[in-house]
Amino acid sequence: MTPSGGRLLLVPNALDLGHDAVDLAAVLPQGVLEAAARLQHWVAEDAKTTRAFLKRVDARVPLRRPLQALDIRELPRPPKGAPPRPPAPDVWRDLLAPALAGADVGLISEAGLPGVADPGAALVEAAHAHRLAVLPLPGPSAPALALAASGLNGQSFAFAGYLPQDAAARTARIAALEARSRRERQTQIVIETPYRNDALLQALLAQLAPATRLCVACGLTLPGGWCRTAAVAEWRAAPPTIGRVPTVFLFLA
Amino acid sequence: MTPSGGRLLLVPNALDLGHDAVDLAAVLPQGVLEAAARLQHWVAEDAKTTRAFLKRVDARVPLRRPLQALDIRELPRPPKGAPPRPPAPDVWRDLLAPALAGADVGLISEAGLPGVADPGAALVEAAHAHRLAVLPLPGPSAPALALAASGLNGQSFAFAGYLPQDAAARTARIAALEARSRRERQTQIVIETPYRNDALLQALLAQLAPATRLCVACGLTLPGGWCRTAAVAEWRAAPPTIGRVPTVFLFLA
Repeated sequence: MTPSGGRLLLVPNALDLGHDAVDLAAVLPQGVLEAAARLQHWVAEDAKTTRAFLKRVDARVPLRRPLQALDIRELPRPPKGAPPRPPAPDVWRDLLAPALAGADVGLISEAGLPGVADPGAALVEAAHAHRLAVLPLPGPSAPALALAASGLNGQSFAFAGYLPQDAAARTARIAALEARSRRERQTQIVIETPYRNDALLQALLAQLAPATRLCVACGLTLPGGWCRTAAVAEWRAAPPTIGRVPTVFLFLA
Repeated sequence: MTPSGGRLLLVPNALDLGHDAVDLAAVLPQGVLEAAARLQHWVAEDAKTTRAFLKRVDARVPLRRPLQALDIRELPRPPKGAPPRPPAPDVWRDLLAPALAGADVGLISEAGLPGVADPGAALVEAAHAHRLAVLPLPGPSAPALALAASGLNGQSFAFAGYLPQDAAARTARIAALEARSRRERQTQIVIETPYRNDALLQALLAQLAPATRLCVACGLTLPGGWCRTAAVAEWRAAPPTIGRVPTVFLFLA
């Protein structure tokens, strides 16, 4: 375990993308802000939002180098919902070049932990292939926070990501996940792009059994965020409108 | 969503139980330390370790009330590995009484997020049944950090908790999880009590296919912590000794 060069630091982000910015000190440890302020080399999904993040860091912990002097490169974008591609070694090696030369590189997500429900995992995989040290810094993860807030089974759970957009395929997938949940007492966790939140809620309420417990965790860590767990039958009696706030759906049959 | 009283705050803990204490500012947001310092009512797995945690909070953010004046009560302890019991309504209502009377109650885990791989979930479930607002505060979660650090599939993953202790049952369970991982490209996440870490690693290396990718994430957020992802065949060539450090095991076939 002697890393051959610098490290890949996994830098958590706030969960407020597209919403009013929360105070970073409310969601990220001071030590993480300090680590972020020291980094010169970054890999991100989007350089522009990363610069905005770093301006917010700078307001708390002055950046060691001016923002303009930082090296921020973007991950190749996989099509959403596609299975992870096998890494093209050159692409990843180039992104990791500063670490291979002995400097730390930061990987940051648009929201939450890099590589969790997020395209950064392939870079982490490549870092391991190069025997680089990988250091995950603690911060918010929407699926984990939602699971804690749900009160559903936290000893056995599965995150299934996005469900199919086609209605029939989505219904079949919900039925399969509910059957597994019932058989194994496994909490099922799914997400949706915000503008389809209400359609997904309707599909869940239409398909799940009345006694299945459903949690809707909406806008976690945001002002006005809320979460509620109740039986599907209760939700059906008074279904809420979620709107375009980042939401995690969890159920246990 | 008008809560009938106070809130249940889910307070994350550091991941250093049984090890040298890390600086809380390295792992918990300042806002979480401030929220913890304000709380008078606590529910915990262990009152003694919670008092130790609150002393560490106090060193960063002075507690609003002296430690001796805080109301710290313990969760009923379920036997490890047993399925969650249906809540006994009186027990949970008593623990939630301050919230039902309008004051905030904090639920804290021994490590990480309450209710994730942890017995707190039943109290959260009871809070929802009482229509209390549940507010999860952001902090480290070992399974989520390990998943980020693994570089394995973060779009589909399952946490299976502890594996059976009986060798034959454990082997069968590993085989079943690997088959599912292969079929669904689902990362499988398991944990073990620290003194059995090395036995679990041996069982994984004996059972998993040579090409299956295995991540060992050991002592996350601790000094000397490390994580490595490699094919099982590579691990077999030079298996490490883990020792009694909190460790998360992940694999993707």
